[in-house]
Amino acid sequence: MSEARNSRSQRTDTHVPPVAPMRWWGWGRDSEASPLPEAARKLLRERFGLDGSRVDAPVALGDIELPDCRLDERVRNRLADAVGAAHVHSDRIARVSHAAGRSYPDLVRLRAGDLATAPDAVVMPGSAVEVERVLAIARSEGVAVVPFGGGTSVVGGVEPLPGQHAAVVTLDLRRLSGVLAVDPAAHVATVGAGTTGPDLERALRAHGVTLGHFPQSFEFSTVGGWVAARSSGQASSGYGRIDDVLVGTDLVAPAGRLVLPALPATAAGPDLRRLVLGSEGTLGVVTECSLRVRPLPAARHYEAWSLPSFADGCEALRALAQERILPDVARLSDEEETAISLALAGDHPGVALVRRYLRLRGHRQPCLLVTIYEGDGHDVAWRRARCRRVLRGYGGVALGSRPARQWERERFRGPYLRDALLDHGVLVETLETATLWSNLARLYGAVRGALRSALTRVTPDPVVMCHVSHLYETGASLYFTFLAPAEAEERIALWAAAKRAACEAIVANGGTISHHHGVGRDHREWLEPEDSALGLAALRALKRELDPDGIMNPGKLLP
Amino acid sequence: MSEARNSRSQRTDTHVPPVAPMRWWGWGRDSEASPLPEAARKLLRERFGLDGSRVDAPVALGDIELPDCRLDERVRNRLADAVGAAHVHSDRIARVSHAAGRSYPDLVRLRAGDLATAPDAVVMPGSAVEVERVLAIARSEGVAVVPFGGGTSVVGGVEPLPGQHAAVVTLDLRRLSGVLAVDPAAHVATVGAGTTGPDLERALRAHGVTLGHFPQSFEFSTVGGWVAARSSGQASSGYGRIDDVLVGTDLVAPAGRLVLPALPATAAGPDLRRLVLGSEGTLGVVTECSLRVRPLPAARHYEAWSLPSFADGCEALRALAQERILPDVARLSDEEETAISLALAGDHPGVALVRRYLRLRGHRQPCLLVTIYEGDGHDVAWRRARCRRVLRGYGGVALGSRPARQWERERFRGPYLRDALLDHGVLVETLETATLWSNLARLYGAVRGALRSALTRVTPDPVVMCHVSHLYETGASLYFTFLAPAEAEERIALWAAAKRAACEAIVANGGTISHHHGVGRDHREWLEPEDSALGLAALRALKRELDPDGIMNPGKLLP
Repeated sequence: MSEARNSRSQRTDTHVPPVAPMRWWGWGRDSEASPLPEAARKLLRERFGLDGSRVDAPVALGDIELPDCRLDERVRNRLADAVGAAHVHSDRIARVSHAAGRSYPDLVRLRAGDLATAPDAVVMPGSAVEVERVLAIARSEGVAVVPFGGGTSVVGGVEPLPGQHAAVVTLDLRRLSGVLAVDPAAHVATVGAGTTGPDLERALRAHGVTLGHFPQSFEFSTVGGWVAARSSGQASSGYGRIDDVLVGTDLVAPAGRLVLPALPATAAGPDLRRLVLGSEGTLGVVTECSLRVRPLPAARHYEAWSLPSFADGCEALRALAQERILPDVARLSDEEETAISLALAGDHPGVALVRRYLRLRGHRQPCLLVTIYEGDGHDVAWRRARCRRVLRGYGGVALGSRPARQWERERFRGPYLRDALLDHGVLVETLETATLWSNLARLYGAVRGALRSALTRVTPDPVVMCHVSHLYETGASLYFTFLAPAEAEERIALWAAAKRAACEAIVANGGTISHHHGVGRDHREWLEPEDSALGLAALRALKRELDPDGIMNPGKLLP
Repeated sequence: MSEARNSRSQRTDTHVPPVAPMRWWGWGRDSEASPLPEAARKLLRERFGLDGSRVDAPVALGDIELPDCRLDERVRNRLADAVGAAHVHSDRIARVSHAAGRSYPDLVRLRAGDLATAPDAVVMPGSAVEVERVLAIARSEGVAVVPFGGGTSVVGGVEPLPGQHAAVVTLDLRRLSGVLAVDPAAHVATVGAGTTGPDLERALRAHGVTLGHFPQSFEFSTVGGWVAARSSGQASSGYGRIDDVLVGTDLVAPAGRLVLPALPATAAGPDLRRLVLGSEGTLGVVTECSLRVRPLPAARHYEAWSLPSFADGCEALRALAQERILPDVARLSDEEETAISLALAGDHPGVALVRRYLRLRGHRQPCLLVTIYEGDGHDVAWRRARCRRVLRGYGGVALGSRPARQWERERFRGPYLRDALLDHGVLVETLETATLWSNLARLYGAVRGALRSALTRVTPDPVVMCHVSHLYETGASLYFTFLAPAEAEERIALWAAAKRAACEAIVANGGTISHHHGVGRDHREWLEPEDSALGLAALRALKRELDPDGIMNPGKLLP
């Protein structure tokens, strides 16, 4: 512990580019993007009658009309004194690239250059002390503060809303980066909150350990963002949610500093770490996290399966979860998601062969299950053998390692594909929930039905697909992706109708409003069924105490 | 889920005896108590020079001078209207048996008949609605309310302190008892908060499931108490802490009701379940809990080991925890605790043989490790094989199943032995902490040293023994038991000095002030180093919101 603790003040400044690492109007980097594959165009043609032409493109950066900066010279000078003049930005690209998260409406708005809510400035503190200084200035000057990690929120979590304040600054935490200490005996790493997934894993690898946390946003999102929004990675069955691995953390709030030391467990009153988890920047700024890490796995095994139906697949996963022999990654697609995946694989002869083989085995509408096992060789072999038996018992047919490897290779590609779909005038969005096993089929049916019926307004056969990918002994998550053709003028209304229908179905059918994306701006009105009116009052009381002037991330989390 | 949820209103009233089930002056039932065994007397003679005679006995119940009941007739009538006249008690035995928990100073005070803090009445609500009514009356009448499950707190958690109020009632929750629903697919049981360990396990057994939660207080403590004080059972390595298994809960607070539905996981803001966990009756009354259960294990295997030193044993346990192959129970005694256990086993020839054998194997000061594996046969065999290899690698010598079975048979006997030791004028107390593996040896040395040096004031060689019994990938708990001969007039001062020395050593050396007993009245002043001043302010803000008049369990948790 002492090693991790003593090093809290050490912090090496890494190279900090002047703008957010993602292209301002979409996901990721231009160099990594690719046009829509032919198989996807074909699908859009056949399913939605789209002719495959690009109908939408982002406006030019220079054409965007930005609102005037509402910070006066004096405040800007105070901020520059606090963090250094080189770390306060109010130029066009800085403001635009911090103006929104990456939900569908965010992307639509960015592409259209509709930046009414751009921050007045972007401030990049280099230490917790600098964060304290910025919050003190913001309090005294009546400026709202939006903490910003990778800016990948899909629930409006980083939208720069000023609330009742005169201006709003985005606090980009990229400079609070790096692995500050690794405690090899305790398997605990202490990390700056602004560290991105790749930087984290690269630094941990040098110590022979891994966090094993791989959300789809991994390449851009940050440790602090994972904690603030209660992230769960694709290998959560093996490595746990971020909630499970956070053993200590520092939060700088407007009212002071919350230092929660790294502990394996405690009964000293309510666990305040759990108040920081899910606080979404509304209570303060997460500056540092102590996380449980594990040795790099010596062995890794990939195995894909087909299950005869989504219902059978869910039952099989329930058995694995409740026998506690889960693979580290276990991701089951429903009939539609599997069909789409096969269609996107194109006319590859191998795919046709698989289809024929599965039909022979009675899988007319197969459901793909990707499994990945990690650990020492004995453990992997042992779990694999047990899982195979269970999966066969539910009618599972092994498909070899290739589809699982392919999934892993492409697992961070989804958001790029979304940008390409937007180019082609397709509405595409995702949302997720979770519930008890006994309620999973009901919730699945209700949300799927709600989305389909909202989208049939524009197309007779919208794509509404789902997978289960986070498994617990008591239940599982459901992750929906939906697509429909959308005319430019109606797409936001259509998105809002579909989103509302899904959220209402979730709440009416015993699901949580979010399994791993958080509440942000978009889920606020559905928080009360989960937390009770009294729970919301409790959260408001907490906020009043930690953020008396309400400067932290206004308009998020609390309705 | 629906099954569990819909049944929330069903509640079968079970037989409710008029007084708490424990003898009023000590632990458990008279019928289960036994005098101090000869081996223990011998130890007291040799170590402390005590002659083995009983020097202390409880006063007669009739001789206790109770303070006058401060509730006037009108308030008593209102309470009787709220819960039924048969469920409001202000007779001698009811007040006495709810006057204290079961820490050493509690026992000393009870035996002496010093009941300055007895409750003015004991109220036994039969439903959450009745709890609401009682809290409303208490608010309007200015009466403090102390929630009471089994009354087993060892940190002053159920002490009936009125705070700033005119009177105090204890809310005995025994009638909120029973398993209300079991969801067999989700492995979730919904349970009344007043359900004791044996009642819970008996009812779950009928459904073929178990919670697997066995704190030493199991026979008397309740589900609500486990949640309120963040309990951890002896099989926590297998079944998890109560924190890990609580998936939903209801809390009745003076300001309203917090209903948190059963969910496997969520990212919908901070997890309010974690505010209920550890709230220690200061925010409201836990009335109902939804808990993860597991199938009754098909196989169980007992295995005891000797490790060559406590340090080696801790390293072995760290390896098991970090390889994630832990037995469900793993409990390692240090050199002194092992020596005392062997001494208490008496002059049994088997024991002498074991000693000789261990000496031959180089274990001059052996450390006993008890392991128990539960699960299906394959899983038990698999973990056992892997554990054996690790334990042998750290110099472990297998001792067969007998010592492990013996430990299990006697695992709830400790508190009875404590009463017998008190009869003989011995100060005996326990306390526990936890820290990261990298800090375990330092913390162990510091706390042990602090206790020894506080107790050497009365004896040259006090007993200060320790075991590790709750294991995590990042660290472990340390559970200390200490004994010293204590004259009647100095025993409380001696206890206070030893307790303070230990708490200060814990805080100065990076431990948590409690691993599974909570904060109560006794640990309040050491909460700030863990929670920060701002964390305490946050907890106070929460309390103001949920309990605006401060009637809930005054003088506990918050300094």
